[in-house]
Amino acid sequence: MKRVVLALGGNALGDNLHEQMIAVKIAAKAIVDLVEEGYEIIITHGNGPQVGMINLAMETATKVDESFFYIPMSVCVAMSQGYIGYDIQNALREELLSRNINKPVATIITQTVVDANDPAFKNPTKPIGAFYTKEEAEEMTKRGYDMIEDAGRGYRRVVASPMPVSIVESETIRTLVESGHIPITVGGGGIPVKEAQNRHLKGTSAVVDKDFASAKLAEELEADMLVILTAVEKVAIRFGKENQEWISKMSVDDANEYIKEGHFAPGSMLPKVEAAISFVKSGKDRKALITMLEKAKDGLVGKTGTEICN
Amino acid sequence: MKRVVLALGGNALGDNLHEQMIAVKIAAKAIVDLVEEGYEIIITHGNGPQVGMINLAMETATKVDESFFYIPMSVCVAMSQGYIGYDIQNALREELLSRNINKPVATIITQTVVDANDPAFKNPTKPIGAFYTKEEAEEMTKRGYDMIEDAGRGYRRVVASPMPVSIVESETIRTLVESGHIPITVGGGGIPVKEAQNRHLKGTSAVVDKDFASAKLAEELEADMLVILTAVEKVAIRFGKENQEWISKMSVDDANEYIKEGHFAPGSMLPKVEAAISFVKSGKDRKALITMLEKAKDGLVGKTGTEICN
Repeated sequence: MKRVVLALGGNALGDNLHEQMIAVKIAAKAIVDLVEEGYEIIITHGNGPQVGMINLAMETATKVDESFFYIPMSVCVAMSQGYIGYDIQNALREELLSRNINKPVATIITQTVVDANDPAFKNPTKPIGAFYTKEEAEEMTKRGYDMIEDAGRGYRRVVASPMPVSIVESETIRTLVESGHIPITVGGGGIPVKEAQNRHLKGTSAVVDKDFASAKLAEELEADMLVILTAVEKVAIRFGKENQEWISKMSVDDANEYIKEGHFAPGSMLPKVEAAISFVKSGKDRKALITMLEKAKDGLVGKTGTEICN
Repeated sequence: MKRVVLALGGNALGDNLHEQMIAVKIAAKAIVDLVEEGYEIIITHGNGPQVGMINLAMETATKVDESFFYIPMSVCVAMSQGYIGYDIQNALREELLSRNINKPVATIITQTVVDANDPAFKNPTKPIGAFYTKEEAEEMTKRGYDMIEDAGRGYRRVVASPMPVSIVESETIRTLVESGHIPITVGGGGIPVKEAQNRHLKGTSAVVDKDFASAKLAEELEADMLVILTAVEKVAIRFGKENQEWISKMSVDDANEYIKEGHFAPGSMLPKVEAAISFVKSGKDRKALITMLEKAKDGLVGKTGTEICN
């Protein structure tokens, strides 16, 4: 049985509670199609809009009510995992039962270890939470936050996006998948934690890229395939140009060459291709696939999508 | 190996983020003492202050920012499970590793099915979230919320506290505990859901009592013992009176008799004793224990606490 880590993109989750409930129903159908084909599925997902919403609510409460306790980003990620996992697990359970498949689904609160010396901590780039005025931003800078001016819309806090070192709960995920469960894990890239003294894991104000975290998880679970879902069916080179070309298959060497040539947009396709490469390089016979959710079934048998292999 | 469901009370979690981090460290020591004695442990916990904080933040954000999407109580419970589970799992992991015990800990987002016809829905009594003025409360009543005047401090929303019918994720918990994990589950009594059409589970604005939910889980897991942790070492009859008496052991019949005589305070010791009874009655050789966390180890071998048995 092939083990597949399926990384859901933002488009599978929507931008708010209502959109999320509709989006996860559609996602559930496509996922259960894969279950029916006999794949062992592990689901991972992003949390951009959701963690932004939670962070904004917490910041708003802190501004309005002085007795309100400040909630750090790592805790907001933990909350977003509960929030999103709850919806995904229900939509999946419903779709499985409607097809008479008795397979438990479970959301695991998951932490991702990052390196305290990761250079990303010196250069925080990921905007999160609310917009602030210049005066508020200056005040926050004094309090130790990194603030940027965001495209004329006001000032925002930025956090680092360090690389995942390991997934704390991977043994739990392995146990569940080997017992026939569908685990939902590393939500939003996992709660970012640094290894501190005496085995303590300390939450850190960072956001781990969910595709890199999914690649790390797939590596630790010795998965056969990492599927990174996005809004396009295939990866393209010379994207948006007259001589644009859709890529069906690329080796790690090809992919590295395309990266060097600047074919993939930073913050968009580039991290997906890089995450795919990192998984494929982690062992032999490991493949990655980048495609749309609706095309995943065909993509897994080589009919569409972009396959990245050794 | 004896299987024990350990229901942590509010005092094991504190009232805010800072208190919670300290409280869970202390709780972790007592829990790992039980692991060292060879018990299979399943941890459950309340979420009163935490879900109140999350609900308050969400309500505040909705008041301040009209574009902010309303977040229902069931989703707040899901978030609180992530928030609290993250802290408990880390404190436990650290304590286990410091004693060279390699046992994975995992928080499972857990749903509790309640009956749509539960009479509790006709009489909501559990206050949650923020305080409102009379005018705001009237406005909210028009929007369909149940509001009460809360002891002169303002108006608050009240929700129902229905009985748990089943725990959706109990098979996951069983798999994990049988593979040597310590699961953290039914946080805050579980996310309350009603069974709707086509196997759909619909979140409902209610709060399930965490001790009753723990008793239901213990029943479904065929646990040997349910341990309900609280602020006192033993249950007392004629509590606070001159002839107060601490109870070391009571049968279900004794306990029912004491309930009839009005020995236990509603909203305090009464639901704990009732939850204990419901588990003990669910099968033969099942026992419940009510005691303090620090006394759990002695209580499990009959040295202290109040044992409830058939």
